[in-house]
Amino acid sequence: MIPRLLALALLAGSALAQNVVHYTTTIDNVKYVFATAEPVTRLKSGDILDTNTLDCFGNVLRKPGDTLSMVKGDNPLAGPFYVDGAEPGDTLAVKILDLQVDGNTGVGAFSPGFIDHASNAATFKALDSDFSVKIPLHPFFGCMGVAPAEGEARSSVVPAEFGGNMDSPEASVGNTVYFPVNVKGGLLYIGDGHAAMGDGEIAGSAIEVPLKARLRLTVIKGRTISWPQFENDDAIMTVGAYRPLDDALRIAFTELVHWIRKDYGLSEFDAYELLSQVGRIHLNEMVDPNYVVVASIEKKYLPPKKP
Amino acid sequence: MIPRLLALALLAGSALAQNVVHYTTTIDNVKYVFATAEPVTRLKSGDILDTNTLDCFGNVLRKPGDTLSMVKGDNPLAGPFYVDGAEPGDTLAVKILDLQVDGNTGVGAFSPGFIDHASNAATFKALDSDFSVKIPLHPFFGCMGVAPAEGEARSSVVPAEFGGNMDSPEASVGNTVYFPVNVKGGLLYIGDGHAAMGDGEIAGSAIEVPLKARLRLTVIKGRTISWPQFENDDAIMTVGAYRPLDDALRIAFTELVHWIRKDYGLSEFDAYELLSQVGRIHLNEMVDPNYVVVASIEKKYLPPKKP
Amino acid sequence: MIPRLLALALLAGSALAQNVVHYTTTIDNVKYVFATAEPVTRLKSGDILDTNTLDCFGNVLRKPGDTLSMVKGDNPLAGPFYVDGAEPGDTLAVKILDLQVDGNTGVGAFSPGFIDHASNAATFKALDSDFSVKIPLHPFFGCMGVAPAEGEARSSVVPAEFGGNMDSPEASVGNTVYFPVNVKGGLLYIGDGHAAMGDGEIAGSAIEVPLKARLRLTVIKGRTISWPQFENDDAIMTVGAYRPLDDALRIAFTELVHWIRKDYGLSEFDAYELLSQVGRIHLNEMVDPNYVVVASIEKKYLPPKKP
Amino acid sequence: MIPRLLALALLAGSALAQNVVHYTTTIDNVKYVFATAEPVTRLKSGDILDTNTLDCFGNVLRKPGDTLSMVKGDNPLAGPFYVDGAEPGDTLAVKILDLQVDGNTGVGAFSPGFIDHASNAATFKALDSDFSVKIPLHPFFGCMGVAPAEGEARSSVVPAEFGGNMDSPEASVGNTVYFPVNVKGGLLYIGDGHAAMGDGEIAGSAIEVPLKARLRLTVIKGRTISWPQFENDDAIMTVGAYRPLDDALRIAFTELVHWIRKDYGLSEFDAYELLSQVGRIHLNEMVDPNYVVVASIEKKYLPPKKP
Repeated sequence: MIPRLLALALLAGSALAQNVVHYTTTIDNVKYVFATAEPVTRLKSGDILDTNTLDCFGNVLRKPGDTLSMVKGDNPLAGPFYVDGAEPGDTLAVKILDLQVDGNTGVGAFSPGFIDHASNAATFKALDSDFSVKIPLHPFFGCMGVAPAEGEARSSVVPAEFGGNMDSPEASVGNTVYFPVNVKGGLLYIGDGHAAMGDGEIAGSAIEVPLKARLRLTVIKGRTISWPQFENDDAIMTVGAYRPLDDALRIAFTELVHWIRKDYGLSEFDAYELLSQVGRIHLNEMVDPNYVVVASIEKKYLPPKKP
Repeated sequence: MIPRLLALALLAGSALAQNVVHYTTTIDNVKYVFATAEPVTRLKSGDILDTNTLDCFGNVLRKPGDTLSMVKGDNPLAGPFYVDGAEPGDTLAVKILDLQVDGNTGVGAFSPGFIDHASNAATFKALDSDFSVKIPLHPFFGCMGVAPAEGEARSSVVPAEFGGNMDSPEASVGNTVYFPVNVKGGLLYIGDGHAAMGDGEIAGSAIEVPLKARLRLTVIKGRTISWPQFENDDAIMTVGAYRPLDDALRIAFTELVHWIRKDYGLSEFDAYELLSQVGRIHLNEMVDPNYVVVASIEKKYLPPKKP
Repeated sequence: MIPRLLALALLAGSALAQNVVHYTTTIDNVKYVFATAEPVTRLKSGDILDTNTLDCFGNVLRKPGDTLSMVKGDNPLAGPFYVDGAEPGDTLAVKILDLQVDGNTGVGAFSPGFIDHASNAATFKALDSDFSVKIPLHPFFGCMGVAPAEGEARSSVVPAEFGGNMDSPEASVGNTVYFPVNVKGGLLYIGDGHAAMGDGEIAGSAIEVPLKARLRLTVIKGRTISWPQFENDDAIMTVGAYRPLDDALRIAFTELVHWIRKDYGLSEFDAYELLSQVGRIHLNEMVDPNYVVVASIEKKYLPPKKP
Repeated sequence: MIPRLLALALLAGSALAQNVVHYTTTIDNVKYVFATAEPVTRLKSGDILDTNTLDCFGNVLRKPGDTLSMVKGDNPLAGPFYVDGAEPGDTLAVKILDLQVDGNTGVGAFSPGFIDHASNAATFKALDSDFSVKIPLHPFFGCMGVAPAEGEARSSVVPAEFGGNMDSPEASVGNTVYFPVNVKGGLLYIGDGHAAMGDGEIAGSAIEVPLKARLRLTVIKGRTISWPQFENDDAIMTVGAYRPLDDALRIAFTELVHWIRKDYGLSEFDAYELLSQVGRIHLNEMVDPNYVVVASIEKKYLPPKKP
């Protein structure tokens, strides 16, 4: 038996033993397509990445008078980050260890919003009346994705099988994001931080912010997935990014049924019936060219994971 | 200061002062369309209705060997209940005071499920493997609606502006449901009880149960709405029931923006921006001919209600 | 051998032998829902019906200054016409023998248009510039349908399985329209004449006209169909009336494949492959709550009809 | 006045004066993405291109026993062809002068089909019964497109703003296809020949064939378009390639209204009203990830083109 303090020390030791790679993202090294490109840095599987991202406008809208004409491109991306050993058919796991708003300013659809780190809240200010209200921060990456398959180079605006502009609040601290590996090294890209967002992002933007991030990147050899997935201690979650919403939902649920069958051993038939009673749907956004839906089930409703 | 017991007595007294109308629903007095029809009973605005509903199969599937050929029609409805003073252009408010599963048996998409009142849970049993799990009960009406406008008679299977087969878990204890009044008396119908349901109801049915219900029916004169709405102490919620999902969402958000503008005084512009940051979407079902979505906002993010 | 003149005389005789039922439609006897209602007249299977329909505004917009506030209801319907012997499960065949614009005025989305019977053309006049052009007349019924199944009463605006506001240019002279019989007598309704219409009816209305019509109504015992169909000497055609367009198309093609299999003996597999090479799609309208598509195949590509 | 024979001679002379560029496409020089890539050959604006394309399987399915595992990639493309002077914001016009099936074999969804050049027909043979029928040839390019904007590289399977896998029977002899120029030289790609195709291509493939083609490529300086267009002596046509069908249609009609306003001088309002009376819709395909629709109007219904 290991005393608890010793166990913690060992865990800390294991963390210290991990390699930490630092990379600074600036407007001069961002990308605007998910594609096979020269990596900005390389990591070993299990390494920790300390980096930062610019907001969806490249951090250029900072004071009254700044206009969209100053923006060089939508959703500038940090990366690509190459992970040794990742090959087509593998899965890349990205555990989000820490995520902080990088600065005090967020940009909304129509107006800037101030971020108060002390109260961990952003402030919504009405334009047409005298009303303001605090909104709790929930920082997440609007864009996370990898190089697409078959030689495609895809815009940082349209989410798809490779991830991309998913605008999923699930891309936040404590969750692991899984991506299909399509090319050697996987080639992860991240960006488009959001400080808080309503379901559907219906006015077309959330509270847009630069982020500081700490991630652990791990290659899972031989696990093949078709669409991005999320997981945490409590739930498994699948992404459907398509158009119209009906089809995004069909994708997300089909992937979830497959996951339950494969890892938890229920038949497809039983998985559908169980999801019909306890499944959850989170509509992330309905304003990008492809809409994004996350389907999920709490692990407490599942059989033990197969060994 | 009022002692707690006295307060309860006063509340009970206030309840006692209200008229309570009892009505027993059986397979012989149910309806299968939402339409203008002879009322089964009449209430005054503010009266309490004590009644019961049959499950979506008319309570006929009760033991092994019972088959769908025994079912007389889908979603048999209790009602219509006539409320004095309700006229086209008014709103009918239905506060759900109590809702209990009526019996010990629920019927799933593919198999019966047993309801355990002691643990307040239903049991999911896999058919293809040896696995079962308890699911907490959340009883609600799958069908709630009123007589449609312009002389239509509409099936109890397809939800629309008049409500109907919305399969909204929001139709549960503590919530008030609002309906547009299209004909004299409003003519409320209820049925299709569910003991628990996953988002989307993707296998086509939830855990189907008969219900015992206590409702308060109130006419709101001169308040005109286009689609059903929900409300409780914490949130306001609007329904979109259409096809495809994109359009159901557009309806729900448009109605929510209108409600915020009308009752809480934000401009449409500000309401959209606020919803883009804190709005919520609950996809109720995507298996009926029209899909149902509930959009909502917590009241804590809104200005005080206009007097 | 029969001389041609004699043959014509025999045909005429056969026509003369048919019973002709006359019925005059006015604003006082029209209906606004497809429903089970008291028939305005009864015919025997094979009888000819001579009647007329009002335009979609009830013929009230006739001169400058007439406004929509004068309109009592959209798409007033002539009927219902009861056909002896029609029972649920049968098919009602309506052959359109003659169809004439009844008067000299058509109403467009934004302006009246004049019908010139001599040149058989309507005139389009631009509002914002000095341009006009002649459009050949192709009169057809925007609304044709029967009483729906299961006690429903359905608006004359929304097309569905029972027909209704299909806005199909295929509902014109020379074509036979088939409807499922849902109630005793079938109960045919017609209305909403169009003088000419572009595919999709994208501005929301065609050239709206009253019509004079001659139809032959025949009951086909024991032939059961799910959706309306068209047929003429050259082609068989199926209707899908749903939302979104994708689903309307799936319905139309599924019905066409079934028809080919049942009456012409190709397997479903072969029917799909053949339609993938010579099938035709006609998008009728995309502005009503349900969209309407007609899928068709020319008979010259089909095997001989099964006896 | 010029005698007719002399005029013909002058026309022939003008044709002879045009430069003709020959290029032979083989499995070794095809591409699988629309992207910025090294041109295979360069032409001057107005030059004629004589070339050939492989079928959608790269010409490898040629005899019984050949299987899909032999296919290296879907829709191999000839090109890219660079046209001098084409710059972003210009339009590339591709007039299809001649198009011939290159060989005697076509491949259907489930089976090969034989092409008979003498009767200019393909033969459909049922698999499940003893039936065959001749189908007239209408050869066209399933794939025509240019390099996309903003550095994207897009699969040869998904049609979009840059053209691509449009499966438009309008891409045939006598028609001119217009593309937006997104990069220097335009970079035209062609492929995926079809010998005949039903509307919607509902079984997922037409009669797939290699083609021999003669095209004239012309740069139109300063004419900017957003989506591909077609034109011939009789009609102007616009493409919508999106998902779902409703949105493809909205794109096609919006583009057509803009074209009519810009080149023919009708207001948007009048253009919509006119299209609602004489517009045409051709649904090309509904089986690729984006669906393709062509909206059109005959020139005889339009005012004279603005000078």
